[in-house]
Amino acid sequence: MQLDPDRLFPVEPRTRDLARGLYESVKALPILSPHGHTDPRWFAENTPFEDPARLFVTPDHYVFRMLHSQGVALESLGVPRADGGPVESDGRTIWRRFAAHYHLFRGTPSRLWLDHAFHEVFGWSGRLSADTADAAYDHIADCLSQDAFRPRALFERFNIEVIATTESPLDDLRWHAMIRDSGWSGRVITAYRPDPVVDPEFEGFADNVARLGDLTGEDTATWTGYLNAHRIRRRFFQSFGATSTDHGHPTARTEDLSQEAAAKLFDRALRGQLDADGADAFRGQMLTEMARMSLDDGLVLQIHPGSVRNHAADIFARFGRDKGFDIPRRTDYVGALKPLLNAVGNDPRLTVILFMLDETTVSRELAPLAGAYAALRLGPPWWFFDSPEGMWRFRAAATETAGFYNTVGFNDDTRAFCSIPARHDVARRVDCAYLATLVASGRLAADEAFEVATDLTYRLAKEAYRL
Amino acid sequence: MQLDPDRLFPVEPRTRDLARGLYESVKALPILSPHGHTDPRWFAENTPFEDPARLFVTPDHYVFRMLHSQGVALESLGVPRADGGPVESDGRTIWRRFAAHYHLFRGTPSRLWLDHAFHEVFGWSGRLSADTADAAYDHIADCLSQDAFRPRALFERFNIEVIATTESPLDDLRWHAMIRDSGWSGRVITAYRPDPVVDPEFEGFADNVARLGDLTGEDTATWTGYLNAHRIRRRFFQSFGATSTDHGHPTARTEDLSQEAAAKLFDRALRGQLDADGADAFRGQMLTEMARMSLDDGLVLQIHPGSVRNHAADIFARFGRDKGFDIPRRTDYVGALKPLLNAVGNDPRLTVILFMLDETTVSRELAPLAGAYAALRLGPPWWFFDSPEGMWRFRAAATETAGFYNTVGFNDDTRAFCSIPARHDVARRVDCAYLATLVASGRLAADEAFEVATDLTYRLAKEAYRL
Amino acid sequence: MQLDPDRLFPVEPRTRDLARGLYESVKALPILSPHGHTDPRWFAENTPFEDPARLFVTPDHYVFRMLHSQGVALESLGVPRADGGPVESDGRTIWRRFAAHYHLFRGTPSRLWLDHAFHEVFGWSGRLSADTADAAYDHIADCLSQDAFRPRALFERFNIEVIATTESPLDDLRWHAMIRDSGWSGRVITAYRPDPVVDPEFEGFADNVARLGDLTGEDTATWTGYLNAHRIRRRFFQSFGATSTDHGHPTARTEDLSQEAAAKLFDRALRGQLDADGADAFRGQMLTEMARMSLDDGLVLQIHPGSVRNHAADIFARFGRDKGFDIPRRTDYVGALKPLLNAVGNDPRLTVILFMLDETTVSRELAPLAGAYAALRLGPPWWFFDSPEGMWRFRAAATETAGFYNTVGFNDDTRAFCSIPARHDVARRVDCAYLATLVASGRLAADEAFEVATDLTYRLAKEAYRL
Repeated sequence: MQLDPDRLFPVEPRTRDLARGLYESVKALPILSPHGHTDPRWFAENTPFEDPARLFVTPDHYVFRMLHSQGVALESLGVPRADGGPVESDGRTIWRRFAAHYHLFRGTPSRLWLDHAFHEVFGWSGRLSADTADAAYDHIADCLSQDAFRPRALFERFNIEVIATTESPLDDLRWHAMIRDSGWSGRVITAYRPDPVVDPEFEGFADNVARLGDLTGEDTATWTGYLNAHRIRRRFFQSFGATSTDHGHPTARTEDLSQEAAAKLFDRALRGQLDADGADAFRGQMLTEMARMSLDDGLVLQIHPGSVRNHAADIFARFGRDKGFDIPRRTDYVGALKPLLNAVGNDPRLTVILFMLDETTVSRELAPLAGAYAALRLGPPWWFFDSPEGMWRFRAAATETAGFYNTVGFNDDTRAFCSIPARHDVARRVDCAYLATLVASGRLAADEAFEVATDLTYRLAKEAYRL
Repeated sequence: MQLDPDRLFPVEPRTRDLARGLYESVKALPILSPHGHTDPRWFAENTPFEDPARLFVTPDHYVFRMLHSQGVALESLGVPRADGGPVESDGRTIWRRFAAHYHLFRGTPSRLWLDHAFHEVFGWSGRLSADTADAAYDHIADCLSQDAFRPRALFERFNIEVIATTESPLDDLRWHAMIRDSGWSGRVITAYRPDPVVDPEFEGFADNVARLGDLTGEDTATWTGYLNAHRIRRRFFQSFGATSTDHGHPTARTEDLSQEAAAKLFDRALRGQLDADGADAFRGQMLTEMARMSLDDGLVLQIHPGSVRNHAADIFARFGRDKGFDIPRRTDYVGALKPLLNAVGNDPRLTVILFMLDETTVSRELAPLAGAYAALRLGPPWWFFDSPEGMWRFRAAATETAGFYNTVGFNDDTRAFCSIPARHDVARRVDCAYLATLVASGRLAADEAFEVATDLTYRLAKEAYRL
Repeated sequence: MQLDPDRLFPVEPRTRDLARGLYESVKALPILSPHGHTDPRWFAENTPFEDPARLFVTPDHYVFRMLHSQGVALESLGVPRADGGPVESDGRTIWRRFAAHYHLFRGTPSRLWLDHAFHEVFGWSGRLSADTADAAYDHIADCLSQDAFRPRALFERFNIEVIATTESPLDDLRWHAMIRDSGWSGRVITAYRPDPVVDPEFEGFADNVARLGDLTGEDTATWTGYLNAHRIRRRFFQSFGATSTDHGHPTARTEDLSQEAAAKLFDRALRGQLDADGADAFRGQMLTEMARMSLDDGLVLQIHPGSVRNHAADIFARFGRDKGFDIPRRTDYVGALKPLLNAVGNDPRLTVILFMLDETTVSRELAPLAGAYAALRLGPPWWFFDSPEGMWRFRAAATETAGFYNTVGFNDDTRAFCSIPARHDVARRVDCAYLATLVASGRLAADEAFEVATDLTYRLAKEAYRL
């Protein structure tokens, strides 16, 4: 079995030729990965990945979620229990279960990513199934034992120009320090994700804020000290390459309260006196505060709202967070973002990147907002929409109102390291397919399409994320 | 005029060839119709259908709704008045009106179904219009007088392996008994649709619950007796082949109250003391109760929410229910289903099939939910979305997150018997077109597409509905 | 550079041929523009347009909005400040800024409209950029100095059969009188847009209502006098050709209060005692009153809800209304329109045309409503959806339930006069492309497609707007 070299291109021959030409011009460009969740420890220690099951199955919520949806117990896939109780520990057994259910992924982006990784990263060209499970396992396991498949070697082979990880303000960035001190040339930067110290509903919020004070020498029991501590910590993150902050709230709500009112809200947050609405208001106020800090220090503000986290109570109790049960919900941007946008949205020094999990907002709200406010840009379709159809619908819904230049190219947003080349390849192919269709239907000149293809693949991300 | 043998296939030649090949492999598979509203009396008595107008126009709310939207009075189409007042009674006159407005159906699925029925079921190959009205009427009327066009003969000609009708728990299933006793081999099963005894807003709710007690010998004035009565009645329906229950609430709300709280709510429902919110809560509680009963007796739970019924007050007053004025509204599933899903959603013994009338929920809510919870499956696009574009958008929105195997193939959901072959044919064509596009764009191997085509046409429905 | 003669047609050759044939049959039909915002003074005075920048950049919120979103200050584009302060006044300087950012419009309908106007209206066949800015400016400026480019000459060249402007009930229609008195044959009609006297939140509402009384001799301090004044003023507008009224409320809310309750609400509106909800209720009541008046005088009722106006507080303070910051928001039609529809929605003498800025409502709400109620028709996709993709999605979402004949053809809805031929051309191309796809996929016969193409281009607008 071979990967189709023309996969994801339009089927009509002339348009396919156009897409192929565009893709040829961008396929080898370096990967910019300014928003993601890989583990910096991989690049710091550079130890081999453990085994095929631990690389592809156990940590990937796209994969085990689908298996679970068809009755495969998470324990049987090695997903760790919250109580530390026993789960399947034999990699080959896990892999065989995965392989026997591989047909479930037909038509999904996971299938594209996995096939790409098996073929292009590991050079295994079979089709995974119960029959081929052992052959694939042995082949990949053998690769993983070789130096050429250690994290740094793969980073280089993947042609990654820069990758961002995501850390809490309370993180000491030790792995980033170790990378820097190692002299390795790979550019691994951090991003500032302050949930533990800006979300009053986060476990241990008050303690976290106190620790933030310890780390910065500020009195974080006061509103001004707390804001100063953020400023200091943001600078510290910038010293490890950070160019952005990252905010994943349940809603897109922002607030622009008076400093007095904000200080009172903060005080009640510390005392645990906020109800759900108050906590949402505080998070919303902090988005606006973060935007104001960005005007000073230049960090790009990323907002990706709209997920109901841990929807399944039983899964959360048994396995904890991030087990595939974060489900999108309707999201309002127009009302929710108004306070922040009215405060700073037309300041061209600021860049705010918006993500969505509710694609109905793209043509109705996000494209009109990004096509008007000077500070706004649209992030690529994310999570359930990081897929060929999702990307196509995003371009079709966003471009006519926001154009290409109020979008920021592609982010992979993954912790599945070996899927990164596949994800960027899918995005490049879909963008080229979209551009080819514009050319074939007389909406864009061919030379312009080549320029836009490079912009979407490389230049816009570099510029928007200030890399 | 001929039906285009390649209708609904992709237009690009290579993809069309792929679609044609896939369709050839499934077009003759038996029809499974596990969710529908045909009248079991047809198959019990097997008397001829009355005339072309009574077969195609007067009972089909898709058809007379469209005519009414362009100013044709429902009375003039023979739609019975609630007060029993006079309406047009001449079949030929009704048919001529219909034929003269046939252009209104251009671009609609009704046109596809009607043309298919005229050509394939009745062998009339003209195009309906004012000019051809009489010829068509005479031809079809002549057919209807023949034994080969009686209900059972058509059932057999349509290659229906099993069809489900829908009955209330208060129904005595006499027609099903008559079919069983007749010795006819056609498999016509019932489904348990408990609206009259689970919806406090249903006319005569308390009386209905009392009748449920009479039928089962349970004291349905008590919560436990009421639940027992459901259990007994479900078993009775199962003895007539039922494999599923069917729930069409205004919202997807579910509740999982304590049994004490539920008993109180039930008591207030019986006393007529619930407001609209309380009635919604009771219906929501009953969905969870029904799901728990399904764990015991194995009935599949179908939920299809989201319709504002009887939107036009004047039409409802003059003609009663089901006159084309049930209009969809925005539906939330993520919050609404959480109580039920948290109670039983990860139990793989249970099957819950979700339908939608708000297609914005497919990529955002339904596919993420069905792609995660072990009990959930997605029903096919329904009603206004039972159409080529609706089906295509459903596959494009659902597959990347839920895959094919968290969907359940096609249901026709109709009372228009002669449209059943057409509807299944449309679904088979659109699914094959979708699969062909995946193959042509390198997202699925051809041999896999053949397997999926059979799954979507036959195997998934058989399995999901436990037929 | 040439415009692609096959632009916007399907790319597959056979389907393209079908589309081309359909388009050939409608491309030269006269333009009906029954809903728009051109300035009647242009046609009254017939003075030359000022310069290329004042024609294409400064007044077009599609254009300067996009430039502003990428950091170009509105002042530098000559957009007038609310305080009358200085802004860029040199046309050539503005034009150069525009030209240097022309790549921002790639993939947008503005690009299609602008290129079409440059090529087809002005005969300039370059591609706009910083390099070609002066050549284009000089060429267009030279044209504008010629009689053949005065408003009336362009009107005739554009083959406009009728164009509607939009005026307030307080307008004296002097320009319309001047056109009528001039003896020029161009048909420029008005439309009745009563925001200043039906919206309690409009600046000077009570004063406006008093002026309405002065103009009509009615006592508009009373509810019955106020309604009478509307009736009189509507007749006055009809004497200047008006065939429709136009209502752009924030929501689609309608009310059908008793006349007593409505009179009380009106009284409170005049006294400035209504809160936001009360104002919305009053606007909603007035929609139903207007519909009732339409039953008497035959004016078509247009409703286009769903925009949050003046979203950016800083832009509104500095530049006033209509500066590209009117952002759509989720809109409910099903509940909101029920009072009006229950009052008059099934009266076939009435025509209500609904527009949307929330395309999620098309398949879920608007098509089911328009496909059922006798008075309802769907307007074309508007504003952010007046675009190739927007039009295509509208047809794909609306047609299967509402058919073609519950839609009303195309409206340009613009104040950008030179874009009118381009906008109608885009609509004709997209509709023909859609029809060609139906034919190529066996859903519509070719001869029917030709008939529908003419209907969508010309006949439906003529009929729906009673032109």
